[in-house]
Amino acid sequence: MNKLYIIKIGGNVLDDPAALKKFLQDFASIKYPKILIHGGGKIATKIGEKLGIESKYVDGRRITDEPTKDLVTMVYGGLINKQIVAELQTMHCNALGVTGADGNLLKATRRPVREIDYGFVGDITVEDVNNTLLYFLLKQNVIPVFAPLTHEEGVMLNTNADTIASVLAVSLSKHFEVRLIFCFEKPGVLLDVNDEKSVVTRLTEQGYQGMLQAGQLADGILPKLENAFAAIRSGVKEVLIGEHTHLLANTGYDTRGTLITIT
Amino acid sequence: MNKLYIIKIGGNVLDDPAALKKFLQDFASIKYPKILIHGGGKIATKIGEKLGIESKYVDGRRITDEPTKDLVTMVYGGLINKQIVAELQTMHCNALGVTGADGNLLKATRRPVREIDYGFVGDITVEDVNNTLLYFLLKQNVIPVFAPLTHEEGVMLNTNADTIASVLAVSLSKHFEVRLIFCFEKPGVLLDVNDEKSVVTRLTEQGYQGMLQAGQLADGILPKLENAFAAIRSGVKEVLIGEHTHLLANTGYDTRGTLITIT
Repeated sequence: MNKLYIIKIGGNVLDDPAALKKFLQDFASIKYPKILIHGGGKIATKIGEKLGIESKYVDGRRITDEPTKDLVTMVYGGLINKQIVAELQTMHCNALGVTGADGNLLKATRRPVREIDYGFVGDITVEDVNNTLLYFLLKQNVIPVFAPLTHEEGVMLNTNADTIASVLAVSLSKHFEVRLIFCFEKPGVLLDVNDEKSVVTRLTEQGYQGMLQAGQLADGILPKLENAFAAIRSGVKEVLIGEHTHLLANTGYDTRGTLITIT
Repeated sequence: MNKLYIIKIGGNVLDDPAALKKFLQDFASIKYPKILIHGGGKIATKIGEKLGIESKYVDGRRITDEPTKDLVTMVYGGLINKQIVAELQTMHCNALGVTGADGNLLKATRRPVREIDYGFVGDITVEDVNNTLLYFLLKQNVIPVFAPLTHEEGVMLNTNADTIASVLAVSLSKHFEVRLIFCFEKPGVLLDVNDEKSVVTRLTEQGYQGMLQAGQLADGILPKLENAFAAIRSGVKEVLIGEHTHLLANTGYDTRGTLITIT
């Protein structure tokens, strides 16, 4: 099977034009099929403030009300997505910017209201991916660039970018040996959160369970690892958690982040 | 050769949600390959005002300065485009929203500064179309929905939606029998601008030249007709100018607008 890199970047890179440009150059230079998923960034909040759209939170969780839904559709799906696509085009990377609505690539289910009404938030599973069209685009050397948006019944929905990356990785593992890379602000999973050199370079299911039981994992990294191991258990060959500046190393054999495999 | 419908809608439809929904239902029901190109609409001006972005004009021509470029990238490429795509998806029309940057579908040349500096405006020719990818998408039953945006050297550019429609029609005439449909606020070319029943139902190059010499054409329709005949002379089989509410009739044999052919 051919390799496929699925790479997620967050707001910290998007908010720094020089860092973003360097990251995109590294991304463009990867000589395998690849998909980029980007998050939001402070620009949405800034534009929202000017438009008089308040950021609403309940118990620390962001709520996507109707004005916020339109805001993120504009900013994530328009401004950020097209800026990334236009820059990648100058780097001879044939990027195609999409949301889940485009080509029905990611149909979601609007999150049901239980304790909290999250508003226009979409939950997705592997079955929601239009694998056929994605595979076809990749075969045409087109590089999909996903904004963190999905759709249901004619309505755009806000969806977590990490989850989109995981779900795409699981779905495309039918066709490719997938390495799913989460770029974040630290060089990898750290044994000591205060020591950036304490990167756990390899982690398997067994090692993860051991570290969990020994209480060796900081709270902040737990959701990322749950996500990573969920992908691994569903057939994704490798997940890598690392820093965006190490992208090139982390797409090769001599990785600098935490490389996660089943065994 | 197979038929292909290339349909352009303007701001008047986009600004009216009920009219837009009806139009999209008609569009979705067309049983041939098709492409939609949408213009802007008042929503961009409204959002621009809230963001403190002034609409600038020189000699009655709109200028796209940098804040306006980002505004139209957000609103045309994000908000309007994705709303149309999400609605079409509910109508079982597998729409894929794009700008010219996506898949390098339309590379432009930034308009050179002569008497007027139009700012971030892109001019395009038939050679700028990524015909291969467009053809491929159409063969996959994907329906491209174009926002009026192109790109050059990593920068998004504002581009006239009528021109995008014409250029796509000429380029795709290699593969398809194209009918290019311009939807506007009148039922077609009128012999008497005050009489909506005076539609010129058929117009050929010869008839057009005759009407031009006789001074029978109102100023408002001239740019549209120049555009239409430029497309016809470059190999587009048919151009139709008509009202958006007549879309279904105008995709059939018994058209209600002005059907333009070479002879």
